[in-house]
Amino acid sequence: MRRLKIVVEYDGTDFAGWQRQANGPSVQAAIEDALAQMTGAETIVRGAGRTDAGVHALGQVAHFETAAEIPLVGFRRGLNALLPRAIAIVALDEAAPDFDARRSARGKLYRYAIWNADSRAPLRDRFVWHRPRPLDAARMQDAARPLAGRHDFAAFRAADCERKTTVRTLSRVDVARDGDLVTIDVEGDAFLKNMVRIIAGTLVYAGYGKLGAREVEAALQAGDRRLVGPTAPPQGLTLVRVDY
Amino acid sequence: MRRLKIVVEYDGTDFAGWQRQANGPSVQAAIEDALAQMTGAETIVRGAGRTDAGVHALGQVAHFETAAEIPLVGFRRGLNALLPRAIAIVALDEAAPDFDARRSARGKLYRYAIWNADSRAPLRDRFVWHRPRPLDAARMQDAARPLAGRHDFAAFRAADCERKTTVRTLSRVDVARDGDLVTIDVEGDAFLKNMVRIIAGTLVYAGYGKLGAREVEAALQAGDRRLVGPTAPPQGLTLVRVDY
Repeated sequence: MRRLKIVVEYDGTDFAGWQRQANGPSVQAAIEDALAQMTGAETIVRGAGRTDAGVHALGQVAHFETAAEIPLVGFRRGLNALLPRAIAIVALDEAAPDFDARRSARGKLYRYAIWNADSRAPLRDRFVWHRPRPLDAARMQDAARPLAGRHDFAAFRAADCERKTTVRTLSRVDVARDGDLVTIDVEGDAFLKNMVRIIAGTLVYAGYGKLGAREVEAALQAGDRRLVGPTAPPQGLTLVRVDY
Repeated sequence: MRRLKIVVEYDGTDFAGWQRQANGPSVQAAIEDALAQMTGAETIVRGAGRTDAGVHALGQVAHFETAAEIPLVGFRRGLNALLPRAIAIVALDEAAPDFDARRSARGKLYRYAIWNADSRAPLRDRFVWHRPRPLDAARMQDAARPLAGRHDFAAFRAADCERKTTVRTLSRVDVARDGDLVTIDVEGDAFLKNMVRIIAGTLVYAGYGKLGAREVEAALQAGDRRLVGPTAPPQGLTLVRVDY
């Protein structure tokens, strides 16, 4: 058996998320189906992390084992020809026998994108959250300050998040504005369910003056989900890359 | 009656083009329907130019006349709420009584985008032509050189193009590479049917070494469609702006 590492880009709009599930098409299932067609064997693909329904990826990483002796370039091209257009394997390489897309990951970069103009932008619409009222990006960056570092992020996770420990380390939370596009880059070692989307919703609240760094700090300390902003919708979120 | 000018952005993927027609949903018809709903009157919208089925716009311009005394911002917001998400009115302003979106236009900028990597890019897929084999952008730019200026573009139009004169002036045809993305900017006073897509197809041929500046020059002189490249597919093309 050989172990292979893949980098996957996908438009998550029409998927029920990364992980295989009963209630809709998943990215994982699409890749596993393509692998089964190419190799003739059922193959399980393990991703670096789940992405929610509607969330996108530029650089999701996954691994799988196969006995198929297909050359790398042809393997990648064959998979891409079998996959729906919304999914592409952008890299496929041999991996060390102990490589594990999730456990070996040192960190991940997520980007949350907001279209901050009165009219929506059809050419970007699938990949942004449209917020018509002007956001104060400096206030957003200020409110993001307490998030960087090692903290208990219990206030920033979905009610049904099943992780036992909620301490995570974020190396940066950067807010940037480029014209009408506001982006929030969140880089960290690991993430709780909905964590980046709750951070984005909280920073949008901050951009409208509803809360600031003090409230974010208090929410972290209290571990209380009710003290922060709403969960931003999935389509603004993209898993940009996974670092090893 | 007041005359209004609108700037329209649209994702053309699911439309049969700008112009109202029997065989599918058009951008023009969608806007006219929204106007009829808001004003209660049948309203004809006249665009600066037709875009083909599947072609996009960041800045299409159109005008219409209406007796409705709706304030500008509310008018725009109401139209956007009524329009499908793939279309947005990004600006709506009063226009002079003699303003005509097509006749008053001094020029237009089109951009043709090519994704030039072995794997397709799902996050860009709706807006690019995927050409896996490496393109030589310098050769493309070189072959584009004879196109700038005032020429008879009879070789660069669809067989069913109905324009009587085929002389047009292009102020620039610029090829640029940014990583795996190759863009062709074509700016000119007016365009023949499929003209930019035939230019793009011809420059892709040039990028693969199949022809060069000499062949482009000869094709212009002969006015022979068979001497140039294929018509590039519509999804890579975006009408970026119309100048007045």
